[in-house]
Amino acid sequence: MASNTAGTMEEAGKLWGGRFTGVTDPIMEKFNASIDFDKRMWKADIQGSQAYVKALQKVGLVTMEEMQAIHNGLEKVGEEWASGNFQIQAGDEDIHTANERRLKELIGSPAGKLHTGRSRNDQCATDFRIWLRDGLPLLKNLLRDFITVLVNRAKMEVHILMPGYTHLQRAQPIRWSHWLLSGALAGNPFNVDREFLAKELQFDSICGNSLDGTAGRDYVAEFLFWASMTMVNLSKWSEDLIIYSTKEFSFIKLSDAYSTGSSLMPQKKNPDSLELIRGKSGRVFGKCAGFMMTMKGLPSTYNKDLQEDKEAVFEAYDTMEGMISIKKTGFYHISYH
Amino acid sequence: MASNTAGTMEEAGKLWGGRFTGVTDPIMEKFNASIDFDKRMWKADIQGSQAYVKALQKVGLVTMEEMQAIHNGLEKVGEEWASGNFQIQAGDEDIHTANERRLKELIGSPAGKLHTGRSRNDQCATDFRIWLRDGLPLLKNLLRDFITVLVNRAKMEVHILMPGYTHLQRAQPIRWSHWLLSGALAGNPFNVDREFLAKELQFDSICGNSLDGTAGRDYVAEFLFWASMTMVNLSKWSEDLIIYSTKEFSFIKLSDAYSTGSSLMPQKKNPDSLELIRGKSGRVFGKCAGFMMTMKGLPSTYNKDLQEDKEAVFEAYDTMEGMISIKKTGFYHISYH
Amino acid sequence: MASNTAGTMEEAGKLWGGRFTGVTDPIMEKFNASIDFDKRMWKADIQGSQAYVKALQKVGLVTMEEMQAIHNGLEKVGEEWASGNFQIQAGDEDIHTANERRLKELIGSPAGKLHTGRSRNDQCATDFRIWLRDGLPLLKNLLRDFITVLVNRAKMEVHILMPGYTHLQRAQPIRWSHWLLSGALAGNPFNVDREFLAKELQFDSICGNSLDGTAGRDYVAEFLFWASMTMVNLSKWSEDLIIYSTKEFSFIKLSDAYSTGSSLMPQKKNPDSLELIRGKSGRVFGKCAGFMMTMKGLPSTYNKDLQEDKEAVFEAYDTMEGMISIKKTGFYHISYH
Amino acid sequence: MASNTAGTMEEAGKLWGGRFTGVTDPIMEKFNASIDFDKRMWKADIQGSQAYVKALQKVGLVTMEEMQAIHNGLEKVGEEWASGNFQIQAGDEDIHTANERRLKELIGSPAGKLHTGRSRNDQCATDFRIWLRDGLPLLKNLLRDFITVLVNRAKMEVHILMPGYTHLQRAQPIRWSHWLLSGALAGNPFNVDREFLAKELQFDSICGNSLDGTAGRDYVAEFLFWASMTMVNLSKWSEDLIIYSTKEFSFIKLSDAYSTGSSLMPQKKNPDSLELIRGKSGRVFGKCAGFMMTMKGLPSTYNKDLQEDKEAVFEAYDTMEGMISIKKTGFYHISYH
Repeated sequence: MASNTAGTMEEAGKLWGGRFTGVTDPIMEKFNASIDFDKRMWKADIQGSQAYVKALQKVGLVTMEEMQAIHNGLEKVGEEWASGNFQIQAGDEDIHTANERRLKELIGSPAGKLHTGRSRNDQCATDFRIWLRDGLPLLKNLLRDFITVLVNRAKMEVHILMPGYTHLQRAQPIRWSHWLLSGALAGNPFNVDREFLAKELQFDSICGNSLDGTAGRDYVAEFLFWASMTMVNLSKWSEDLIIYSTKEFSFIKLSDAYSTGSSLMPQKKNPDSLELIRGKSGRVFGKCAGFMMTMKGLPSTYNKDLQEDKEAVFEAYDTMEGMISIKKTGFYHISYH
Repeated sequence: MASNTAGTMEEAGKLWGGRFTGVTDPIMEKFNASIDFDKRMWKADIQGSQAYVKALQKVGLVTMEEMQAIHNGLEKVGEEWASGNFQIQAGDEDIHTANERRLKELIGSPAGKLHTGRSRNDQCATDFRIWLRDGLPLLKNLLRDFITVLVNRAKMEVHILMPGYTHLQRAQPIRWSHWLLSGALAGNPFNVDREFLAKELQFDSICGNSLDGTAGRDYVAEFLFWASMTMVNLSKWSEDLIIYSTKEFSFIKLSDAYSTGSSLMPQKKNPDSLELIRGKSGRVFGKCAGFMMTMKGLPSTYNKDLQEDKEAVFEAYDTMEGMISIKKTGFYHISYH
Repeated sequence: MASNTAGTMEEAGKLWGGRFTGVTDPIMEKFNASIDFDKRMWKADIQGSQAYVKALQKVGLVTMEEMQAIHNGLEKVGEEWASGNFQIQAGDEDIHTANERRLKELIGSPAGKLHTGRSRNDQCATDFRIWLRDGLPLLKNLLRDFITVLVNRAKMEVHILMPGYTHLQRAQPIRWSHWLLSGALAGNPFNVDREFLAKELQFDSICGNSLDGTAGRDYVAEFLFWASMTMVNLSKWSEDLIIYSTKEFSFIKLSDAYSTGSSLMPQKKNPDSLELIRGKSGRVFGKCAGFMMTMKGLPSTYNKDLQEDKEAVFEAYDTMEGMISIKKTGFYHISYH
Repeated sequence: MASNTAGTMEEAGKLWGGRFTGVTDPIMEKFNASIDFDKRMWKADIQGSQAYVKALQKVGLVTMEEMQAIHNGLEKVGEEWASGNFQIQAGDEDIHTANERRLKELIGSPAGKLHTGRSRNDQCATDFRIWLRDGLPLLKNLLRDFITVLVNRAKMEVHILMPGYTHLQRAQPIRWSHWLLSGALAGNPFNVDREFLAKELQFDSICGNSLDGTAGRDYVAEFLFWASMTMVNLSKWSEDLIIYSTKEFSFIKLSDAYSTGSSLMPQKKNPDSLELIRGKSGRVFGKCAGFMMTMKGLPSTYNKDLQEDKEAVFEAYDTMEGMISIKKTGFYHISYH
């Protein structure tokens, strides 16, 4: 920039800019560090590095002995994490530096070779994909179990009738089993993502473009949307059941394990479990909306903004895991009036 | 509800509730009516009804003669729409009533049989699926053309180098063609949705549950999300190009057809086309966020809230069509400095 | 950008960039033009220009005669809009160019002086503020009328009792009037915005910084949020009333003017009016979410992205106007069981 | 619900519903409990209870001696929290039960009287208002400090010129100080909320309606929106500075404390601090969007869904605190080229 008063620009520059150099502001450090949440990926990081060091050995960048030292060292690091004995140090700003620091302590200088030709961004992008790939089966199995509960119950209770509604007004009689099997859960959103993620995350093919490889986060947004879609479907189901459990409808009764009472008003049985599920659909979609906004208008390739990806996914993942579990088990606790 | 003063409840009820009966408030009518936007589905509605009347004839609910009268009548109604001669009347609250009203004028009483065993909700849900199925190829082709432009350009200009960036800081040199082919467009989001929509919209299978059939709108939300994801990817691309076209970067120059100038400041060449694309990514995602909120916590089956689906899809669709067209053609208008 | 093959960069540049110059792509033109929606601001544009030409005369940039010619000419343009006789021409890309073009036809060359020292951005920003300032009283009055209906009804029906609920479970008995006066509408969100907008839009002070003056859109986002907040409150009220009007609750009955029936199922009375309001809360918030995303990460000062502001405000405004009207009048149509 | 096969409904009911009674599912318990995050409100809870017990004594519901015992007991509980010695027990599901449980251990049976005529919902709503009222001055002071930095810097550097931009294209020269003072931060959004919150949270008036008092969460949504609006404004500022710090623009240079380098590419100085701020604007808005969705269509009065309020506010609050701190201090670290 130019100054219309000779000399002053430089002075001003020095005045403000020259005072602090080389020391990172602690608040900045705190927000820059991701170890608090990305330590969840410790296993994926070990796996990724073990595969990578084998690849380094194949092209002759590390010797067979170095490879084995690094591989075994990483194995030990992993055992420390698994047993809860891994000690995070002050300088460990993310899971990658933490594991490398520990590896170096365990095996010394060969540890440094692990980083040959691999950037932090590569490592981070790969680990996250591994973590999500390995974490999805749990959600998938939970959903499958939940659907199984519904299908079994529909079979056993096929003879039970209830009023069908549109606009919450009684329309024609339908079967309870019809309602049970009406969730969109069993339908497209899950299949869609399963197919997408099957292709994307089982690494059947490589990313065609390295700019995307490190900076593309469509799979994050798509996971968050799938989670939101599923939660919105659960919210509708919860809404129905909350209404069905009112005194006025009295279709169903929740067991004590899934509701709360009131000492003042003993007639009440509050459907807290269902309200939690309905309420948290907003939270999960908030993660999707927030991340879409974070990505909007970003320049291509890596920008620090993308660090928002992991906490969003972890929170959506944990919320879903909890809510589907409650929904699935809770279904055993519904009795009819 | 009860009253603690004898008799007054009924009086109050009469006072407020008894005054107006049987006449719909005009404002209510205006918002309830959907003909202004759902007339876009005239063709889908004709197709759906023509198929339905054939099905009615097969089970003997209409005679062969009635079927042919209805089928031909619908053909004429379609011709009126196609030629711009269809006259919407005051009572035509949606495309379905409009077409039926006109059919009755053309062929008389047999028209009434078309409605046998078919609800408005069925018809509406089917028409919208047909419309979206038939409309997606246009977007798909536009995207394919756009990708073809990129691939061809990347081939021809493979020798052109540019700085690669992360954090908008110069990193390593990359090829211009590398950047050209880095868009997520060519990647997953499109394929994912294509696979989903192939299954969902070409009607390879029926909806397994009639509650979902009329009230499920996951496919609407998924379209809106896919549109948002694509627009967010376009917004990143636009951001890059806007920055590359600044005086300071001077990597590229937009042609006059895709920028505007300023009479006061002739040195300026504003990248309006790219800014429109970037800005409209927010609009499209707003449609997705809004519709997700509309669906959240709704009771199952049909509720009038779901009427929000069509305008959201139409606006997202039209915006995408325009923006991809601008992006695609606009690419021919970029020259290098 | 550089080329690693001598001479080819320029060639490539010419090849792609040199082919079209000076003609704007029609699709680009269509999306760049805003006349279709910003013509709503015709009055604000006339008012702004009439004030501006007086200011020009005061500093001697136009003569008294020129000022009067321009002022009277603008008056005539306004009369044409008011009587529906204004003819939009092909080149009229926005309301400002349309009015100026017409002014020139009416009074000739002095019209050109109106633009002295005023940019399109200034004019556009001022007009939109005037329009919103003048449009808010309508919404405010609608809200006031609605609140008056509630207060009057609460007074008259203070003796009517109903069950109070939490978690949709019966808690303690409350008065119907208690529920009537529980809306957050009468409370903070409206007051907050009234105070903000009073200060902001009655122009008690000038914008302190010209960069903000043309490019700041916080007031747009705040209007959209206020509209969303109000609609979310209306959605809760609608939810209650929809549940209260079910066969099972049977607290209230909607009159025919605010509900629809079903020929197949005459027992039904669908609360469409309330469902429309509940559903459209999503639409209005979608406008807020979308515009926040559009603004996120924009460089300061004017960018074309900001063109998204008007349609968002207009749609939110019209939706609110309709929904509050339905809600207000609809309240007269509720009777008790 | 009815069964068309005699007797089976009851059997089915018993089969599923009768099996578990009275024991809460541990997953349900985990999500139902809020102590992990609401313990932040320990001080507000003590203050609220101390005020409440005084009020109980005034109306004769507790004796003077009981009041003093409770007041002093609460003082000790507060000291335990302040010194980090408070031990959370397994049954402490929220801060209110934790404090009451501990109070009972300390002073015995009089502790039970504290709950006279006060519901958990009352207590929770009051505590949260106190917490937010007491927490806002910190954010306000941070913003004031930040604005002071800007104003001082603008004064000192009023002679420094830079290009003004619209559409990121050079327009007219402006002063650096002009840009410095262009943030919307100093403007309306903050004032609006200060005025709103002054009225709302300093309890100048009571809530006019008890349904709103416990279940109204407009102030939560408004805080989240204000936070989002502020963050979006910070995101625009960050975007400018990121672009200004590119090699190509070279207007400013960030100090090492607010940027990171790359060992591979020593020419780089990544503006991580600014990218964090820009990225987190999405996160904060996600909280707003999510909570709006949670509130949409909820029945009035308390529903468990509303438990989403606190984590949303805490996360938005902490993010803002961090980001404004980085922004404020970071400004001292900008030097000019």
